[in-house]
Amino acid sequence: MAGSWVESGKKSDFSISNIPFGIISNDKNHLHRPAIAIGDHVLDLQGFAAAGGFAELKPSDALLSSLNQVTLNDFATLGRPVHRTVRKYIQEVLAEDTNMPNVLRDSSVLREKVLFPLSSVKNHLPMAIGDYTDFFAGRHHAFTVGSLFRGPDNALQPNYHHLPVGYHGRASSVVVSGTALHRPRGQILADPTAKPQRPTFEASKRLDIELELACFVGKGNAMGKPVSVKEASEHIFGYVLMNDWSARDIQTWEYVPLGPFNAKNFGTTISPWIVLADALNPYMTTGIANETPLLEYLQEDPGRTGFELSLEVDLAPLSGPTTTISRTSGRNLMWSFAQMIAHHTVGGCPLRAGDLLGSGTISGLNDDDRGSLLEMSKGGKTPFKLSDGSERVFLKDNDSINIRGWAGGEGASRVGFGHCSGTILPAIS
Amino acid sequence: MAGSWVESGKKSDFSISNIPFGIISNDKNHLHRPAIAIGDHVLDLQGFAAAGGFAELKPSDALLSSLNQVTLNDFATLGRPVHRTVRKYIQEVLAEDTNMPNVLRDSSVLREKVLFPLSSVKNHLPMAIGDYTDFFAGRHHAFTVGSLFRGPDNALQPNYHHLPVGYHGRASSVVVSGTALHRPRGQILADPTAKPQRPTFEASKRLDIELELACFVGKGNAMGKPVSVKEASEHIFGYVLMNDWSARDIQTWEYVPLGPFNAKNFGTTISPWIVLADALNPYMTTGIANETPLLEYLQEDPGRTGFELSLEVDLAPLSGPTTTISRTSGRNLMWSFAQMIAHHTVGGCPLRAGDLLGSGTISGLNDDDRGSLLEMSKGGKTPFKLSDGSERVFLKDNDSINIRGWAGGEGASRVGFGHCSGTILPAIS
Repeated sequence: MAGSWVESGKKSDFSISNIPFGIISNDKNHLHRPAIAIGDHVLDLQGFAAAGGFAELKPSDALLSSLNQVTLNDFATLGRPVHRTVRKYIQEVLAEDTNMPNVLRDSSVLREKVLFPLSSVKNHLPMAIGDYTDFFAGRHHAFTVGSLFRGPDNALQPNYHHLPVGYHGRASSVVVSGTALHRPRGQILADPTAKPQRPTFEASKRLDIELELACFVGKGNAMGKPVSVKEASEHIFGYVLMNDWSARDIQTWEYVPLGPFNAKNFGTTISPWIVLADALNPYMTTGIANETPLLEYLQEDPGRTGFELSLEVDLAPLSGPTTTISRTSGRNLMWSFAQMIAHHTVGGCPLRAGDLLGSGTISGLNDDDRGSLLEMSKGGKTPFKLSDGSERVFLKDNDSINIRGWAGGEGASRVGFGHCSGTILPAIS
Repeated sequence: MAGSWVESGKKSDFSISNIPFGIISNDKNHLHRPAIAIGDHVLDLQGFAAAGGFAELKPSDALLSSLNQVTLNDFATLGRPVHRTVRKYIQEVLAEDTNMPNVLRDSSVLREKVLFPLSSVKNHLPMAIGDYTDFFAGRHHAFTVGSLFRGPDNALQPNYHHLPVGYHGRASSVVVSGTALHRPRGQILADPTAKPQRPTFEASKRLDIELELACFVGKGNAMGKPVSVKEASEHIFGYVLMNDWSARDIQTWEYVPLGPFNAKNFGTTISPWIVLADALNPYMTTGIANETPLLEYLQEDPGRTGFELSLEVDLAPLSGPTTTISRTSGRNLMWSFAQMIAHHTVGGCPLRAGDLLGSGTISGLNDDDRGSLLEMSKGGKTPFKLSDGSERVFLKDNDSINIRGWAGGEGASRVGFGHCSGTILPAIS
């Protein structure tokens, strides 16, 4: 594909091959509204639609209404054929070599009204999130963390290769990239060997990240109506990067027998721009092999469990240079999102537009490709170095984490997520 | 308190001391709208407000707007002082001995418009539920079930007496009383001793109930701003009964290490009428004693952990008489809802109006006061008898469960929940 007349010379995650959707506001207009990102600009879709920008598409009332909302839930609900048509149309409008009458390229007045520098807008949560579910599909992460706690022979539970293990997370504390979070305080068992066991109340000392990919549900399913693996792709609106911040010391004490709770629910950060399923699906690839024969409802093409996706984690102290502490790959997943959806719904659970499904931590098996500090520091025992020579085991106050991810090349084929970033403020008091 | 001029002679959960809030529609008006229940009638609050019924109260615009919504979220957000004022006003309107100008009692035209027989209305979910959290505060249940799996010496995990253990549940599958549910299908490990372990895909054979009390959050808290035990009561809008249906065979296989998932997310039933905090709080009482010294943020008056609340569970096969299979008490709780809220928010997690917090299963320690069939059948091993002589271990297809609960006496002081009922349909195919 040729480039866009909007793209700058700089390499951008938001090439014309991408066209990710988000919710923005800016100084001139505080109303939250849909937009797409292109190069180092955003196109305000509400303004563009109001100016008749979609006229050539003969848009339905439902589509126009969906672009007039403060979240993308209505747009997501319209279904993948509509998303496909709208994305293609916007690509036409933005293409260097477009042949269609182009009200945007040819009108400086309209460009002024609806095309803003990316740096001038504020991103908001793109969807109203109904339920958030987090899976555990990164087998290398599950194995390494399991080994730390139970040894390599018992690292994975017997169910691990038979079903995509997942749990219900907290939707209310999902925040958009750039939101600062306070270090959580909670119950911690400082000395597990002391009898009787007496937890203390303190700020987490083992504050961690989890690098994840997540999908947003577009089309829902009715209660009692499971979605098959084959149907599932029609239910996926698009993808974001996610940082599932985790307080390991709170988690260790609280998580038996019902799973993680306060160790996770103080905040989960997602990237603001939703990369549509059509943009990312070409990069589906073979993930981590699962040799276990699967029940029929979970059978999937092994070439569709991973993504040919570069993933990086940057850590930046308050002052001091940024260090890329991990470079890993979307190939490090053993279950596809379609399998997660099939499993989630097989007992009848309804998914709704705006539901968020996380992959679980994406890690490789080497020192430099881990998705959590728990792995990088070998269970909190071995510090790793930052580029200024300082060390980390877990996060310090005022550390910022920035997760980045992209597929494709460096030019007009690049499909990236931008930033999923957050700073840890001192503990709440 | 004297009775209401509306109450029938029959004993009713919805006496003038109660005034529970719900969302209704009826044949004449399909719009979902707020109402209260009184005796065997409901008062349509939208219609009543539109007719100027609240004029004497000098209602705020926010109050009038909240009565014009399809859920009670806006009303809940107004806060307990407003709920108190509105409930008292409605009690005045309905009281036998009221002195105030009474447009409802004195106008048959208005009564016809806004006062309907309970049997003529349809109840809907009273709140849009953002997040649903389920706790585990019924110590007797936790102990008995833990004993079944790990023996009495290891029944309770070391954290149990230090914090109200809870997990995030699934909000999208919370349904209102009267909604039928299909038996879920899922992965089940029929023979845990076989090597290698091979799950099968089948309909749950160990389908259970969990009798719970739940609270709805009214006032939320900002992210990073914990709510103390003392403040927590201002955040509680009111209470409902809950049946947390559970597929034990699915649960056993799936729940390690992240907690229950498909075993629970196929459906959770709540009673339709929210008993306001002001109506139920007079029945707070001493619950199950906790001898463990608590961290300061969880310290609570031991007289406020339980409720003087009668709870009963009825089982009715498709044909055949109804059997009351359990009679238990709201005293069987070891953590107060205020403690649950304090713990839930202590790390900074935000609660929002409409969030639902379940108590966990409420059981006694005797054969006839259990809140789950797992306990009644001693781990599924000992059938219990129904009144027609038939037996149950877990639920059969077309069994209906009806949970009831009430505080106070039998007349004008009774504060009850009505029904929390549901029928299990054959497995989805």
